[in-house]
Amino acid sequence: MKRRVAVAGASGYAGGEVLRLLLTHPEVEIGAITAGSNAGELLGSLQPHLVPLADRVLDETTVEVLAGHDVVFLGLPHGQSAVIAKALPDDTVVIDCGADFRLTDESAWDTFYGGEYAGSWPYGLPELAGQRGLIAGATRIAVPGCYPTVSTLALAPAVAAGIVDVSGIVVVAASGTSGAGKAPKTNLLGSEVMGSASAYGVGGTHRHTPEITQNLRLLTDDDVRVSFTPLLVPMPRGILATCSAPTTVSADEAYATYQRACADEPFVHLLPQGQWPATKSVVGSNAVHVQVTVDETAGRLVAVAAVDNLAKGTGGAAVQCMNLALGLPETTGLTTIGLAP
Amino acid sequence: MKRRVAVAGASGYAGGEVLRLLLTHPEVEIGAITAGSNAGELLGSLQPHLVPLADRVLDETTVEVLAGHDVVFLGLPHGQSAVIAKALPDDTVVIDCGADFRLTDESAWDTFYGGEYAGSWPYGLPELAGQRGLIAGATRIAVPGCYPTVSTLALAPAVAAGIVDVSGIVVVAASGTSGAGKAPKTNLLGSEVMGSASAYGVGGTHRHTPEITQNLRLLTDDDVRVSFTPLLVPMPRGILATCSAPTTVSADEAYATYQRACADEPFVHLLPQGQWPATKSVVGSNAVHVQVTVDETAGRLVAVAAVDNLAKGTGGAAVQCMNLALGLPETTGLTTIGLAP
Amino acid sequence: MKRRVAVAGASGYAGGEVLRLLLTHPEVEIGAITAGSNAGELLGSLQPHLVPLADRVLDETTVEVLAGHDVVFLGLPHGQSAVIAKALPDDTVVIDCGADFRLTDESAWDTFYGGEYAGSWPYGLPELAGQRGLIAGATRIAVPGCYPTVSTLALAPAVAAGIVDVSGIVVVAASGTSGAGKAPKTNLLGSEVMGSASAYGVGGTHRHTPEITQNLRLLTDDDVRVSFTPLLVPMPRGILATCSAPTTVSADEAYATYQRACADEPFVHLLPQGQWPATKSVVGSNAVHVQVTVDETAGRLVAVAAVDNLAKGTGGAAVQCMNLALGLPETTGLTTIGLAP
Amino acid sequence: MKRRVAVAGASGYAGGEVLRLLLTHPEVEIGAITAGSNAGELLGSLQPHLVPLADRVLDETTVEVLAGHDVVFLGLPHGQSAVIAKALPDDTVVIDCGADFRLTDESAWDTFYGGEYAGSWPYGLPELAGQRGLIAGATRIAVPGCYPTVSTLALAPAVAAGIVDVSGIVVVAASGTSGAGKAPKTNLLGSEVMGSASAYGVGGTHRHTPEITQNLRLLTDDDVRVSFTPLLVPMPRGILATCSAPTTVSADEAYATYQRACADEPFVHLLPQGQWPATKSVVGSNAVHVQVTVDETAGRLVAVAAVDNLAKGTGGAAVQCMNLALGLPETTGLTTIGLAP
Repeated sequence: MKRRVAVAGASGYAGGEVLRLLLTHPEVEIGAITAGSNAGELLGSLQPHLVPLADRVLDETTVEVLAGHDVVFLGLPHGQSAVIAKALPDDTVVIDCGADFRLTDESAWDTFYGGEYAGSWPYGLPELAGQRGLIAGATRIAVPGCYPTVSTLALAPAVAAGIVDVSGIVVVAASGTSGAGKAPKTNLLGSEVMGSASAYGVGGTHRHTPEITQNLRLLTDDDVRVSFTPLLVPMPRGILATCSAPTTVSADEAYATYQRACADEPFVHLLPQGQWPATKSVVGSNAVHVQVTVDETAGRLVAVAAVDNLAKGTGGAAVQCMNLALGLPETTGLTTIGLAP
Repeated sequence: MKRRVAVAGASGYAGGEVLRLLLTHPEVEIGAITAGSNAGELLGSLQPHLVPLADRVLDETTVEVLAGHDVVFLGLPHGQSAVIAKALPDDTVVIDCGADFRLTDESAWDTFYGGEYAGSWPYGLPELAGQRGLIAGATRIAVPGCYPTVSTLALAPAVAAGIVDVSGIVVVAASGTSGAGKAPKTNLLGSEVMGSASAYGVGGTHRHTPEITQNLRLLTDDDVRVSFTPLLVPMPRGILATCSAPTTVSADEAYATYQRACADEPFVHLLPQGQWPATKSVVGSNAVHVQVTVDETAGRLVAVAAVDNLAKGTGGAAVQCMNLALGLPETTGLTTIGLAP
Repeated sequence: MKRRVAVAGASGYAGGEVLRLLLTHPEVEIGAITAGSNAGELLGSLQPHLVPLADRVLDETTVEVLAGHDVVFLGLPHGQSAVIAKALPDDTVVIDCGADFRLTDESAWDTFYGGEYAGSWPYGLPELAGQRGLIAGATRIAVPGCYPTVSTLALAPAVAAGIVDVSGIVVVAASGTSGAGKAPKTNLLGSEVMGSASAYGVGGTHRHTPEITQNLRLLTDDDVRVSFTPLLVPMPRGILATCSAPTTVSADEAYATYQRACADEPFVHLLPQGQWPATKSVVGSNAVHVQVTVDETAGRLVAVAAVDNLAKGTGGAAVQCMNLALGLPETTGLTTIGLAP
Repeated sequence: MKRRVAVAGASGYAGGEVLRLLLTHPEVEIGAITAGSNAGELLGSLQPHLVPLADRVLDETTVEVLAGHDVVFLGLPHGQSAVIAKALPDDTVVIDCGADFRLTDESAWDTFYGGEYAGSWPYGLPELAGQRGLIAGATRIAVPGCYPTVSTLALAPAVAAGIVDVSGIVVVAASGTSGAGKAPKTNLLGSEVMGSASAYGVGGTHRHTPEITQNLRLLTDDDVRVSFTPLLVPMPRGILATCSAPTTVSADEAYATYQRACADEPFVHLLPQGQWPATKSVVGSNAVHVQVTVDETAGRLVAVAAVDNLAKGTGGAAVQCMNLALGLPETTGLTTIGLAP
């Protein structure tokens, strides 16, 4: 019997992506679709690419509307998930695409987000050591941030194997604009972003910084220090993360380490040596493309990973976690096939 | 009396940009315009944006055609400049936009370029300590590579002031596609690059790597080690370089250091603290926008700089050097005004 | 039992798109994958988005390799399909994505293509009156050109209903760059197309012009005259066709006509009145989004349609036709869900 | 002595473009720079490309601030210009980049804009028959809309020569996003516009429709009927207008007509026969690139023109008009050189 799922925040990019994936998922049927200020509108006017749902009218995001589903996806502005989640039955699988339940360290929450700390939920990155087991059977899951997903997957094999100095990690990640959401802002206008690359949240101030550190600390006892710089580049989807850290191993050793680490992961695709990731190859897919080498002159391992920030970076991860939580095969309804060109 | 200038390689992006700038330069008149396989064609069919020169027919690139000018700009494929330059009179100012004469270290040339080493010319980055004096009055000038220009200008203040550990420099630079030239290649097709960010030349293999190191070594006796990763992002012009290195200074100290270093440079524009560069702001201009901060948690200084790879990154630098070589005011015919949005 | 299919020209955009769709088609298994100059290479290096096929080596495109399949898709340069098709068994379903067999009028072939006229095959636009029946059971099918597909579907309801003067049709269609193929050309470089809109093939000279006329002539006995202008705009996929013709009906009458015509078509999605198509909504999908109104001041009906030139415009149409030819449900393996943003 | 000019609305795209052009204009000095809600902010934070003005603080847009200048440019939201203009001295040259004073027909104003009709000013398209004389010496000038500028210049030679049937004109114009302004709206987000072409204002409802008709009516006594469809395509600047009308002349006759009409216009650049306009060639320039042919099969003349909507389409036209109003050479401070690639 198909599971009945609801999507809250269906007018935004995260909610839209979850719906896109659910529409072709063989084990679910789509129940309530809700929004905040867009409640009452046709989904077809807000998400015209979702033709099979074009005639659906958006409900208001309330506990009443969301109750009675097997799974509830939350694609809400930060700070709104806790109230909803608390009011839903304990056995409803609640999957939060927001940041409210990602950080395990309250002081990091205070520094980077502020407001009341809501605690943390099982962290929805199955590829990160130990998480897969925690997600299976969980009824509350926090979907990781898009930058932490790609940065963690790029660095985890090296950190876990102890082949890099984790006190000198540098991550520079170029993101498409959809990661910034659908709320209209001048700096996100097409006129501003087309033809322009820019940096923001520089100097360790971006909210995803402590999440990257938190993830890597699960893999080592050494002092993890990450310099993280996000860039905005002119494309709607995709993140390319360039990650490096001091190392003494050779390029071949590094690659062999990554081969071992990625071998059994259905969505982590280590490219053949010499081929480097491009975000276009993962657009629409749940795959992460990874490559690694060592710059012997500089003495650094360099790993590059590409992800679709809305798919594996948000909505795809959410569906992957739902599969695990429901005991379905992890890859159900997900693909490693990208849309190119 | 106006100087008579020639441009060889006028059908390419470097040559086209030099012509664009020369057209509004008050002290020159444009003489020969030459090309290789496009000789005999109308410039208007190859560079339709250069309306005042639309009716000019491209000559073939030969010493005979280029002789008799006060200044000759070379925008030729690597390896072709030496022969031409040798045959031109010693007192003709020859400005090479290619890589042939940039590297002072023959072994670096052998490793990264190969073929016969042609030696080195005064290096056309006036902002780099000592170079302005060498360029003034020179008759042979090597225009820097676009990545080295922006990376050097981003890092030079910190390196010269000794406030960073130069053995741990990391540069990740996102470039538009025009840096790869106008020769048709599948991976540079619009269908491939639009919507995609990708890495290439990873692991210290890009040809601009030794040039960056060479520049920074002029500023310190310490062992400079640079991890350089170039990215291709979907825009025609512009490079955004994110540069970092270990430091112990504060953000304010770092900014003050940059203020002092940039104060007298007409084309280096240090943004107000907190404002980060965007390539769009420098498109078409000779300005470099720079910002710096310190990530105290990670212990790294992070400097970001934006440049138009074709303007200050190539053609603008070439004109700036011409001005110095001819004894004109350095800023003649150049602008710090970008074209946005 | 699954049908065994081969794809010739798998390194190009049409072939890649056919493979992308076949990978999730429940009734086929992918057999031979072939190419011309790229034979011997890994598909993963040429189409890195097709992860499940990354390790497949491309065979050379020969009759021997293609024989023994139930279905053969041809994504070859114009003029190469006839020889292959002739050598394949009559009961093999051969679906040609090229232009060789589209035109029923030899003189139009001579004018717009030249070379030997190979004749015509059933025309793979099931939505065009009568074609669905011809395709069902056919073993040779010519996939329509991308511009004719979208222009025909935009205009067919009006022409078939006789509510426009077909002697005054004007079509201006803005296309992404992938329609021009993957062969490297200077004018298709990212540096050239990003930030630019341009016209080409103006004045009725584009090869798709006679195909549009041919299609509309199936719907009326009046003298069809079409002014067709294609534009190149900076996006990788998608065509937006703006089509108009003199009319005397009202906007509501026009819309009602389109409602009736589109009601039973699974892939033609008439938007609610007042909502206009955007190509982003159909990217990756087999849907065509259509809207219509009447400009009473100008006295013209204006219909706008959006299509993904590679999906419904090429590869999706090819799969749709395969479904019909094999007696499968027409929508098998195809979707109306687009990828946005 | 230099004229003192003020720019109201300097935080928007029109105001920013006027400033960009004034900065290199030899006969003006920039006085007051004003804004509405951005008053009090640094221009450098709003228009970071205008480096020489980075430290200027925006004044509030009031009559007091604007008084005392020789020229005042208004880049204000529709409806705000009339009050300001009325309060400024009669001999101040007031140049309005908005729509308030463009339409000579009050009923057209009522239909397309509504609100109080403010009357009309001399129309700032010097190339349109008779306007140059009216602008010279005027102290109130209405800068044309961007679509009317390019459409009028594309069609005027044919209409004036009487070689087309003006009752059957069709204009489809693909515009970059900056034409829609800098106010944040969801549909103008980079995530929405990149990778997408869409139609809007279809069916003669766009506000520029009556302005195009008004212009062409100056050139003929016949009944002008224009079907105008604007498209939004993924680029920040530029409009490409594809214009057609029934004709009986040949392509060569049409071209000869355009040659005569464009010969003496400094900013109208008729391309060599066979070369078609691309918006990239006119970015940043005041030039309009035009080409024309005849589709004899369809019986229509097709003219295509490209313009930078912010330059010749707004700010450049404003400066061109200022030059005429002040008795300066018309081309002062303006260029026909575009920025490409």
